[in-house]
Amino acid sequence: MRIARYQAPGGAPSYAVVEGDGEDAVLHALEGLPYDGLRRTGEQLPLGQARLLAPVEPSKVVAFGRNYAEHAKELGNEVPEVPIVFLKPSTSVVGPDAEVEYPALTSDLHYEGELAVVIGRRCKAVAAEEVAGVVFGYTVANDLTMRDVQKSEGQWTRGKGFDGACPLGPWVETEIDPSSLALRSSVNGELRQDGTTADMLRDVAACVSWVSQAMTLLPGDVVLTGTPAGVGSLQRGDHVEVTVEGIGTLATRITG
Amino acid sequence: MRIARYQAPGGAPSYAVVEGDGEDAVLHALEGLPYDGLRRTGEQLPLGQARLLAPVEPSKVVAFGRNYAEHAKELGNEVPEVPIVFLKPSTSVVGPDAEVEYPALTSDLHYEGELAVVIGRRCKAVAAEEVAGVVFGYTVANDLTMRDVQKSEGQWTRGKGFDGACPLGPWVETEIDPSSLALRSSVNGELRQDGTTADMLRDVAACVSWVSQAMTLLPGDVVLTGTPAGVGSLQRGDHVEVTVEGIGTLATRITG
Repeated sequence: MRIARYQAPGGAPSYAVVEGDGEDAVLHALEGLPYDGLRRTGEQLPLGQARLLAPVEPSKVVAFGRNYAEHAKELGNEVPEVPIVFLKPSTSVVGPDAEVEYPALTSDLHYEGELAVVIGRRCKAVAAEEVAGVVFGYTVANDLTMRDVQKSEGQWTRGKGFDGACPLGPWVETEIDPSSLALRSSVNGELRQDGTTADMLRDVAACVSWVSQAMTLLPGDVVLTGTPAGVGSLQRGDHVEVTVEGIGTLATRITG
Repeated sequence: MRIARYQAPGGAPSYAVVEGDGEDAVLHALEGLPYDGLRRTGEQLPLGQARLLAPVEPSKVVAFGRNYAEHAKELGNEVPEVPIVFLKPSTSVVGPDAEVEYPALTSDLHYEGELAVVIGRRCKAVAAEEVAGVVFGYTVANDLTMRDVQKSEGQWTRGKGFDGACPLGPWVETEIDPSSLALRSSVNGELRQDGTTADMLRDVAACVSWVSQAMTLLPGDVVLTGTPAGVGSLQRGDHVEVTVEGIGTLATRITG
């Protein structure tokens, strides 16, 4: 099932079930949050008339660095023996079709297409084999990175935590096996990343378990699972698309 | 003025103004959040009868590493040319007199007493000379750190982001000059840190401005300004106190 979040003209933001495909897709509005069960309000809206928002409102986004061997190599890095984990603040989250301003702090903004795990249940110290029970679903992320700032500051907080640094969407797919999904990114229609989640060094279960050993995860929290090879620079005006097979395409425009 | 947050027996959490000192101190409950003006509900409670909560509910805690030269040296580190900035998630925040469980992941848990800045207004790219206008007040923090995990993982997310890693309190002092305040930490009554905020390499204005160049700060967000020399290990059962002159004392017990 696909769970989106949207804002109708003049209305308040609402979660919704997406039914149907293409021009026939319809949003069925939900009461409250979707994590404890789906209660439809009866309101409907054709998807084409809605402005989609980020499909989650995470208290935190926890992200893995260098979780694909070929990507670690392309930036001249070793594959990490211990996972590299960083945080992106909630203020970095934007939705599908967002316009993200090219940050003044950088002269080397990079896209990084990723599979994003959405947590459905409050949890702590989850064993890898129990992770499926705390996952709500999966969405698509772009881990936008000021590469020069990331390199110069040691900790990646500003380099990966600026406003707009975490496009998420277009919706959360709750019924999909994340273990072998094609993951592609394009810039202005040109294919740049062509990977598969099967190449993750640590899989979804290992990533979520690792984070949860230290910190409680809350419903709506997001775990980003790293990016495959093919990252590169963006320019003002670029249109980036990240597609994960079986979930959808997350589009972002770089402005400024 | 002192702004606390408390929970009366059987009641919901509430912000409050603290008036009076010692045994005469009284909490005057407030409607809603304190950032847009203080609206008293008329309810009062002697401070001694209340359980104080963390005085803020930050969407993010942004923290500075190695912002006192003597502390950088004591851990064998250089003073950073570029500020080191990391995030602690909201799930790491606990209040005054919290019991924090010694995390299973570490065998070297450290205290780090710090001055914490509480943001009062949504802001972005604030010039240093404008920072005073976006600050709500100041509280006391203990940047609890799994030193071994911090060192082994590169990014400090788990090492400084575990549940309970961010005790804050006892309240926010809204009328104080942060530029030269004594900052002391003790363990089981024994003085361990004896510094002054005058020794910060980058002062409050510089820290807040630096973070805000990348990310929007929201009311209630917290900026931790680093710890002076004298950090060290904690054991199960230890009672840590951090005192900042003119604000108060934040006590934490390590359990487990």
